Amino acid sequence: MLSSAGLALRRWASGCQGGRRTLATVISGNKTSQLVRERLKKDVEKMRKEVPGFRPGLVVLQVGDRDDSNLYISMKLKAAAEIGIDANHIRLPKSSTEEEVLSCIMSVNENPAIHGLIVQLPLDSVHRIDTEAVTDAVSPLKDVDGLTSINAGKLSRGDLGQCFIPCTPNGCMELIRQTGVSVVGKNVVVIGRSKIVGAPMHDLLLWSHATVTTCHSKTTDLPDHVGRADILVVGAGRAEMVKGDWVKEGAVVIDCGINHVPDDSKPSGKRVVGDVHYSSARERAGYITPVPGGVGPMTVAMLMENTVQSAWRFVRRQQSG
Amino acid sequence: MLSSAGLALRRWASGCQGGRRTLATVISGNKTSQLVRERLKKDVEKMRKEVPGFRPGLVVLQVGDRDDSNLYISMKLKAAAEIGIDANHIRLPKSSTEEEVLSCIMSVNENPAIHGLIVQLPLDSVHRIDTEAVTDAVSPLKDVDGLTSINAGKLSRGDLGQCFIPCTPNGCMELIRQTGVSVVGKNVVVIGRSKIVGAPMHDLLLWSHATVTTCHSKTTDLPDHVGRADILVVGAGRAEMVKGDWVKEGAVVIDCGINHVPDDSKPSGKRVVGDVHYSSARERAGYITPVPGGVGPMTVAMLMENTVQSAWRFVRRQQSG
Repeated sequence: MLSSAGLALRRWASGCQGGRRTLATVISGNKTSQLVRERLKKDVEKMRKEVPGFRPGLVVLQVGDRDDSNLYISMKLKAAAEIGIDANHIRLPKSSTEEEVLSCIMSVNENPAIHGLIVQLPLDSVHRIDTEAVTDAVSPLKDVDGLTSINAGKLSRGDLGQCFIPCTPNGCMELIRQTGVSVVGKNVVVIGRSKIVGAPMHDLLLWSHATVTTCHSKTTDLPDHVGRADILVVGAGRAEMVKGDWVKEGAVVIDCGINHVPDDSKPSGKRVVGDVHYSSARERAGYITPVPGGVGPMTVAMLMENTVQSAWRFVRRQQSG
Repeated sequence: MLSSAGLALRRWASGCQGGRRTLATVISGNKTSQLVRERLKKDVEKMRKEVPGFRPGLVVLQVGDRDDSNLYISMKLKAAAEIGIDANHIRLPKSSTEEEVLSCIMSVNENPAIHGLIVQLPLDSVHRIDTEAVTDAVSPLKDVDGLTSINAGKLSRGDLGQCFIPCTPNGCMELIRQTGVSVVGKNVVVIGRSKIVGAPMHDLLLWSHATVTTCHSKTTDLPDHVGRADILVVGAGRAEMVKGDWVKEGAVVIDCGINHVPDDSKPSGKRVVGDVHYSSARERAGYITPVPGGVGPMTVAMLMENTVQSAWRFVRRQQSG
């Protein structure tokens, strides 16, 4: 549902027959993530006043040397440094075994100077490594990616105060909050059910009291479901699959997709698009996130938020215990 | 969606204007649970041929002396005995502390003769006991109620092979299977989001590839959602809240409600009804579960199934290790 201002705009637009439609308000992930990072920087300064010499500690564990992982890790390290988080990049060789990876995780779990541990996926090893076993080996108290089964269980059952919320869904919620549109009682459609986007997004929206429908590859009437969504979150991993004319008039549209499509007009020969057909959806939505510059930058910011939150919990436990 | 036979019946019925409608086929939980229990009995006999002297072991841990708990526990013990499961009832006094309850759980966790451990809720102690902490103390390998965070996390993220499925949702799935209606791609509505019914039911249906909508107390347009449901599962805990005329023609209706309402015509002065208004819903649904005799008996049967499954896993681990 729209805010009253948004609704007025929309009525005005629908009254202009043959005229230009009002375009959706663009929700900027660049701006919002910047606000989050500035807030966190102040938070860390406050923490250091309370506990002199203290710094939130983050470990990013990488196995192998994938180009895309290297890029994502460098973004995380840069964001951490700006905020005042002590971020450490541990890179294990491609020849690492599961046992070696688990052993490294155990030692970080036990290191009291580290409050957040993330394992950069996918694991790039010549050996077969069980990703689930590796993810679940991270201490739930340091699982700032929110990917352990224990964290997922707490989130899925509504124990939100006791868990870390996965970064992309947490970023989406922050972007929805920016619109001023309340999710309580709204019809929300989530497209996708992945462990890092769709499934935790469902949980977070459900426990924020939305009525949530999860659609996926087996859904038979996707446009109908999308057409009823006051808020739509798409994490399907398929370029521009959601068409603008499916979107409900005035809806909030959050696009988690990052897809590379061929584009001869670009020097690289390709460009990045989301899972939503942006230009047509913008003609119907009330609010929409762009790709790039929407959900993407939020994910890194929310990882920093979880790390700072974990550090605060650590400080509070030290103080009370 | 209906089976073709069901669809033909329904067309016939809607053609009979003014005539009597075709009533929904009743899905009997009494009969289905009996079939499950007979299958499990044979399974245990097979197990005992393979491993002479072996019995699946179950512990039901009770704190205090609630009448309703006593009734439920006696039903579980009786079902277990019939199947050949060695069921043990441990009753701790009302004066038990959280520490004492946790200590008892730890000793059962370590007992190799026990393959399933359930804690009867609610805990009836004079002391404040953290139910979450108690539930989560059960070993995930023996958590045949499927209520630990780790089990919930695996179920919610689609790792169904590695977890125990909570008994009531598992029983509902078995009843849906009895109809012959496939859930794949169907629009399914779950009403309720409790830890033992609604939330795991959503997960199970989603990972069985239905398009699932979860409705709850904050849902604003419940009749509309219900009207679109090919399959409806209700675990709201409110007597007869779903009206017959909300139900989609030909839908599968699974009612998890157990509510006591006043009834002067009964010697007890009350009767048991579900969350669905049965007589009116039966005029529109294709299949419907009664209350009592629907989901209720399935819950105990599925607890036995999880216990036998856990015992098999234990046997296989012994054999392979």
